Amino acid sequence: MPELRKDPFTDRWVIIATDRAKRPSDFRFSASEKGKEECVFCGGHENETPPEVFAIRTAGEPNAPGWDVRVFPNMYPALRTEGDIDGGNVGMCDMMNGIGAHEVIVETPDHSKELVDLDVVDIKKVLVAYRERINDLGRDVRFKYVLVFKNHGKDAGASLQHSHSQLIATPITPKRVKEELQVAREYHESRGRCVFCDYIEQETRLFGDRLIREDENFVALAPFASSFPFEVWILPKRHSPYFVSMSDEEMEGFAVMLKDVLNRIRVVLNDPPFNYVLHIAPFRRPKADCCETREEYHWHLEITPRMTKLAGFELGSGFNINPTPPEIAAEMLRGA
Amino acid sequence: MPELRKDPFTDRWVIIATDRAKRPSDFRFSASEKGKEECVFCGGHENETPPEVFAIRTAGEPNAPGWDVRVFPNMYPALRTEGDIDGGNVGMCDMMNGIGAHEVIVETPDHSKELVDLDVVDIKKVLVAYRERINDLGRDVRFKYVLVFKNHGKDAGASLQHSHSQLIATPITPKRVKEELQVAREYHESRGRCVFCDYIEQETRLFGDRLIREDENFVALAPFASSFPFEVWILPKRHSPYFVSMSDEEMEGFAVMLKDVLNRIRVVLNDPPFNYVLHIAPFRRPKADCCETREEYHWHLEITPRMTKLAGFELGSGFNINPTPPEIAAEMLRGA
Repeated sequence: MPELRKDPFTDRWVIIATDRAKRPSDFRFSASEKGKEECVFCGGHENETPPEVFAIRTAGEPNAPGWDVRVFPNMYPALRTEGDIDGGNVGMCDMMNGIGAHEVIVETPDHSKELVDLDVVDIKKVLVAYRERINDLGRDVRFKYVLVFKNHGKDAGASLQHSHSQLIATPITPKRVKEELQVAREYHESRGRCVFCDYIEQETRLFGDRLIREDENFVALAPFASSFPFEVWILPKRHSPYFVSMSDEEMEGFAVMLKDVLNRIRVVLNDPPFNYVLHIAPFRRPKADCCETREEYHWHLEITPRMTKLAGFELGSGFNINPTPPEIAAEMLRGA
Repeated sequence: MPELRKDPFTDRWVIIATDRAKRPSDFRFSASEKGKEECVFCGGHENETPPEVFAIRTAGEPNAPGWDVRVFPNMYPALRTEGDIDGGNVGMCDMMNGIGAHEVIVETPDHSKELVDLDVVDIKKVLVAYRERINDLGRDVRFKYVLVFKNHGKDAGASLQHSHSQLIATPITPKRVKEELQVAREYHESRGRCVFCDYIEQETRLFGDRLIREDENFVALAPFASSFPFEVWILPKRHSPYFVSMSDEEMEGFAVMLKDVLNRIRVVLNDPPFNYVLHIAPFRRPKADCCETREEYHWHLEITPRMTKLAGFELGSGFNINPTPPEIAAEMLRGA
């Protein structure tokens, strides 16, 4: 019997189509074919990209080889940094000019390596780059939010195969983020607790069938209402709305957990396309929107393998059909 | 300069990335490769599918050849029809058993034809099948909504290539539908008018640059905040929340408009993958949810070519990046 499950964090429903229960080998997707030739993201090609805005380097000048992680503006930005925010309308429709920031975080100068292949110390450098860019963009009062994400593989929307993440800073808090903030605030108002903290407690203490890995500071689990097969969330046990609040020790722990989880996904699903998205609270601002709470929020990372297509039903309804129950996904990922 | 545009019907923002403005030839997608062999949806293979629940036939018995349109339960249903609705919880998480209906509407017995190839009289039969199934499923009080949709091409989620639509009846009104209903209600409360009627008026009388085609009863336009490149909506000029309220004459007019628009999309984009979704009000029920208004809603069809991938940013933010401004899309579709 299929099940309808409600995500307690967004009030979205998901159809867990148990009758179609799929094993990893049932999914078909385009393999991530990476050419061997060097590309503009490779070490030594720094002059073929826009000038860097951040880098962690062991040698060399800015925009020269010697870096481990390097951040620069996207060459084809979805939003532009120059100018003041200017709104207007076209009849009854609202619009704004497309002010924002769109940056690329190249995770390694080595074309042949994926994020999961890096040593923990190098994955931590990628996380430090996220933190520094979030902090820097937060100083720009035009921006309300920055979404940090990674697309791996063609079916997950990656157009360049060299291992990289991206971020887009927006002058508007995205709707999905607002929805999560709203739920966290309402839960906190009625119960005085964080909905994510309660959920971590439930999944680690009361149940264990969706748990993938747990250590001192982090937990990795298959969420109860997974929208995608083999979806995994990594949540910090310490309540905080902000990724940037992590201590050095916590960040190292997060790097360990991220490498481990990405490796499990790669092994079980044979290097599937995936996205991950950092879910964090909007920037602190003196005049916040009414519905933008922050302190009740709990940052986390959502990793979604992309082996199913979003088709008419998903687009039209907003609820996904997931053919793999998260309990089965968790069991397989635990065993990897 | 890119633009941020707000969809007045859902309060979602879209990035219209004018700097990346794409022409039809810039998109890459899997061509819809249809094998020549007959399949289970073909005329003569009726005994290889579940028994039909509806058909329009010129000859023959049920479940035998002689039909023009044929409807039967999906062989791999996302939801099951048998049983009573039963809810429960897993700790703090809500769930329901997966009661619903999932049906396939085969649009022609001829494997070689697409919906757009059919004569208007035969397209109208497909629309009649939608109407009859919506009416029939509406009598089942377990269902709150039925979503009618079509996936064409692999990149749009079609797994079988024989021309068909699907419907899924759900025991919950989907979140995206609720959002549209809410906006329609609020607009009506504050202005006393329908937001869709006002929008049609604006796009046909005040502006014309997003208009694709207009006739006595229908209008086809590229919506101001198109989420996908070359997105097209077909809206009836006569206000009604219900697709099933169309007169015979209106339904024929809708078939004419649908054939014309699908043909323009096929010509301009070279047979792209696409989804379409019928947006209608939920079923009338004695005890409606507070947020489920009906009469202020205005049914319409949303057609979304699928030449871009939904990647990390879109999943995490809920706002899409559309590289083709709707004014350019409309101009090309008008000229086809």
